Amino acid sequence: MLGARGGWQALRRCSSLPRAVRLRVREALGARQPVDEVKVQGWVRSVRSQKEVLFLHINDGSSLESLQVVADPSLENRDLTFGSAVEVQGKLVKSPHKRQNMELKAESIRVVGPCDTWSFPLKMKERHPLEYVRQFPHLRCRNNTLGSLLRIRSEATAAIHSFFQDNGYVHIHTPIITSNDCEGAGELFHIETSNETRESAEKAHFFNVPAFLTVSGQLHLEVMAGAFTHVFTFGPTFRAENSQSRRHLAEFYMVEAELTFTESLQDVMQVMEDLLKTATSTVLSQCPHDVELFHKYIAPAQKDRLEQMLKNKFVTISYSEAVEILKQASQTFTFKPEWGCDLQTEHEKYLVKHCGDVPVFVINYPYDLKPFYMRDNEDGPQHTVAAVDLLVPGIGELCGGSLREERLPFLESRLQRLGLADSYQWYLDLRKFGSAPHGGFGMGFERYLQYVLGVDNIKDVIPFPRFSHSCLL
Amino acid sequence: MLGARGGWQALRRCSSLPRAVRLRVREALGARQPVDEVKVQGWVRSVRSQKEVLFLHINDGSSLESLQVVADPSLENRDLTFGSAVEVQGKLVKSPHKRQNMELKAESIRVVGPCDTWSFPLKMKERHPLEYVRQFPHLRCRNNTLGSLLRIRSEATAAIHSFFQDNGYVHIHTPIITSNDCEGAGELFHIETSNETRESAEKAHFFNVPAFLTVSGQLHLEVMAGAFTHVFTFGPTFRAENSQSRRHLAEFYMVEAELTFTESLQDVMQVMEDLLKTATSTVLSQCPHDVELFHKYIAPAQKDRLEQMLKNKFVTISYSEAVEILKQASQTFTFKPEWGCDLQTEHEKYLVKHCGDVPVFVINYPYDLKPFYMRDNEDGPQHTVAAVDLLVPGIGELCGGSLREERLPFLESRLQRLGLADSYQWYLDLRKFGSAPHGGFGMGFERYLQYVLGVDNIKDVIPFPRFSHSCLL
Repeated sequence: MLGARGGWQALRRCSSLPRAVRLRVREALGARQPVDEVKVQGWVRSVRSQKEVLFLHINDGSSLESLQVVADPSLENRDLTFGSAVEVQGKLVKSPHKRQNMELKAESIRVVGPCDTWSFPLKMKERHPLEYVRQFPHLRCRNNTLGSLLRIRSEATAAIHSFFQDNGYVHIHTPIITSNDCEGAGELFHIETSNETRESAEKAHFFNVPAFLTVSGQLHLEVMAGAFTHVFTFGPTFRAENSQSRRHLAEFYMVEAELTFTESLQDVMQVMEDLLKTATSTVLSQCPHDVELFHKYIAPAQKDRLEQMLKNKFVTISYSEAVEILKQASQTFTFKPEWGCDLQTEHEKYLVKHCGDVPVFVINYPYDLKPFYMRDNEDGPQHTVAAVDLLVPGIGELCGGSLREERLPFLESRLQRLGLADSYQWYLDLRKFGSAPHGGFGMGFERYLQYVLGVDNIKDVIPFPRFSHSCLL
Repeated sequence: MLGARGGWQALRRCSSLPRAVRLRVREALGARQPVDEVKVQGWVRSVRSQKEVLFLHINDGSSLESLQVVADPSLENRDLTFGSAVEVQGKLVKSPHKRQNMELKAESIRVVGPCDTWSFPLKMKERHPLEYVRQFPHLRCRNNTLGSLLRIRSEATAAIHSFFQDNGYVHIHTPIITSNDCEGAGELFHIETSNETRESAEKAHFFNVPAFLTVSGQLHLEVMAGAFTHVFTFGPTFRAENSQSRRHLAEFYMVEAELTFTESLQDVMQVMEDLLKTATSTVLSQCPHDVELFHKYIAPAQKDRLEQMLKNKFVTISYSEAVEILKQASQTFTFKPEWGCDLQTEHEKYLVKHCGDVPVFVINYPYDLKPFYMRDNEDGPQHTVAAVDLLVPGIGELCGGSLREERLPFLESRLQRLGLADSYQWYLDLRKFGSAPHGGFGMGFERYLQYVLGVDNIKDVIPFPRFSHSCLL
């Protein structure tokens, strides 16, 4: 009867008043019939005192919508202000108003936590811009936009976990502290204990070897794919660079998957497409009001884009075709497009536009551009590997993947040439003991949220943005 | 029809041979009727060649059980050895043997990845002890015990996420890099960029302030509980100490939850008990064979213990009662039990035994033992706070929680006395703007797995144990 997921028994059992049914605001709003004795707890979002009646709106973070409380003016008191924490008991009844289903006729109102409204940075009924609330990392989650964002983030996390579980993937916690730098993808954070930082860095390390924060769980995941066939991880990764930009974070979440017994890049791309479509439709159906807030006020074009994405098969072009398209473009780029050079964000955005503002797979990248583990296509004269990037409107690169080089001789000679054979002995080892063709991919979770919601600054899709002035860092 | 979770469409769509149905071993074993053209991929667990027939067992990590393949001896070849990766096509038929439901009559067998059996550290049909496989971090997941363990870890992760989602909790990714040391719980890892470690530690930090790896997400989670009422996090936490012991890890996973509008410690304890029971029964029902392996060969007493746990209400005693019990014990302890001192693991294990080898909540700990955020019980002369630890058989402390001090004056004076008022200005701030009574708890995920499976060494319940010789660290 109540709540999208049904149940929530634990909450109700928590109630310290056995007679009244304790309801979350979301449950109360979704109730199909009146309930005689209910208790609702939350924070006051508005107070409107009229001669004959007192109106409150109560929000407890279970939904964007607040519950309207109708009370006798005698129940008003000095502490009952915007931002205060209250417990309201009364009858849940059908609302006479069209815009809401149910409302609460209060019999008692208890202020359990008053709010110093004068110094509270959020103000009643004001629409605070994201830039403003970003200044208050410990309070901004009580703003509507951030509230919706974090509920969506939570649903998206669950949707991604479910996608993989429903498809038989084993979830693996890949290490956060590691001595593996994943082929030098980005600047690393080093880990030291307090003693070490004070003394020479050359001294004995805590783990006997230099240790870093992971930049990717891929190589660890490949180990596991050699036992479980399909594996995924979804955890924090780190880069010690550019964290003050709108596009980068020092700490961000990655979804990574590896699939053994996969001989074609198309199979990897199919999983990427399925993941994107399944997670997105789950989020849209689980959080319709929260998503609507973004699609109405923050990125009005995004709704249509997502509908197009969900309906159509993603476009695929090769890297070589992409370079040709860019060369023939009327637009002037800061970086001149040239076969053998990396695609820049400006190029990626152009390609997406060119293909009709839809997600685009770019496949088969130059051999020399890509890390050692990507599978050699053995083509020429333009030598490529079986790599794929997924570009999406407004963002550019969202996912990257490849077939992995499963052939021992290819891998051995490539690591030798790169001078990495010693460090990757364990990786070569995997190719000696039943090495099957396999592939995998990664997706930046924050970029995914930016894509779904049309949020421009990546700092706005994380729970705690980093600010130098904040001891909450 | 196939597989416990049903579906797995993405896997089947991945098949590169459109005519044959691609099945995971778990699906093939669970099939209710014969299937004419199937393809199964996996690693050979045994080869037995007889005059008239060749028997293989194929495992792909989707289950502990392998699928029996029956083939004509003409399909044998030199590379078809223990450990090799194969693709078998044929007919899935009812097995004439009692111990299995289905078997695969092979029409073709393709070895896609041979195995150098001579140097492969795992041997056919040998039961390798955990101590032995621990030496091969990149290969041990292909051992039965570790395979079962990691499938269970994956299911338990999913079960914990589902428990909180089904009960209306919002999932929050609390920061991994933080400047908050969570009231000095344990030795910290420091984060530096490569430049910093080489130079003076006093120079400008990457984040302008010293930064550490998180020891707990609790305080960040409390911020979010002030907006969403019920929140949880489930991520890695770190301690730079004791990591070479059987009981401690430098990197481990914590489940943490915060509940606003919670006035009694019993409400927090009820959620802890519900979580433990729900997650455990899900794991037992989702992975019966995997769990059985542990309960049969590794910890035979554990099965009964879990059944008792699931059936009965947990016992509750106060800290003061616990100290009295310990003082009256005939056993001699290394640490003499005394009111005002921490309970040691030896004490915890004794208390659990004393109460009948069942989970025991110990509540109301001495005020001076506990961190500033725990709620003052205002009692005396033995002054306590509303804290709770959950002790379980074989482990000792599994969870810890408390009511949080929501009253500004209490918190202010306590932080002042501890000299922490400046650092926790933001935390005091939360108490000014609608501070409701609340509580929360944390559970060590690896200890939980140890408890369910009866695994003695905590290094055996993580995917990648840390060894100084391993570049896989």
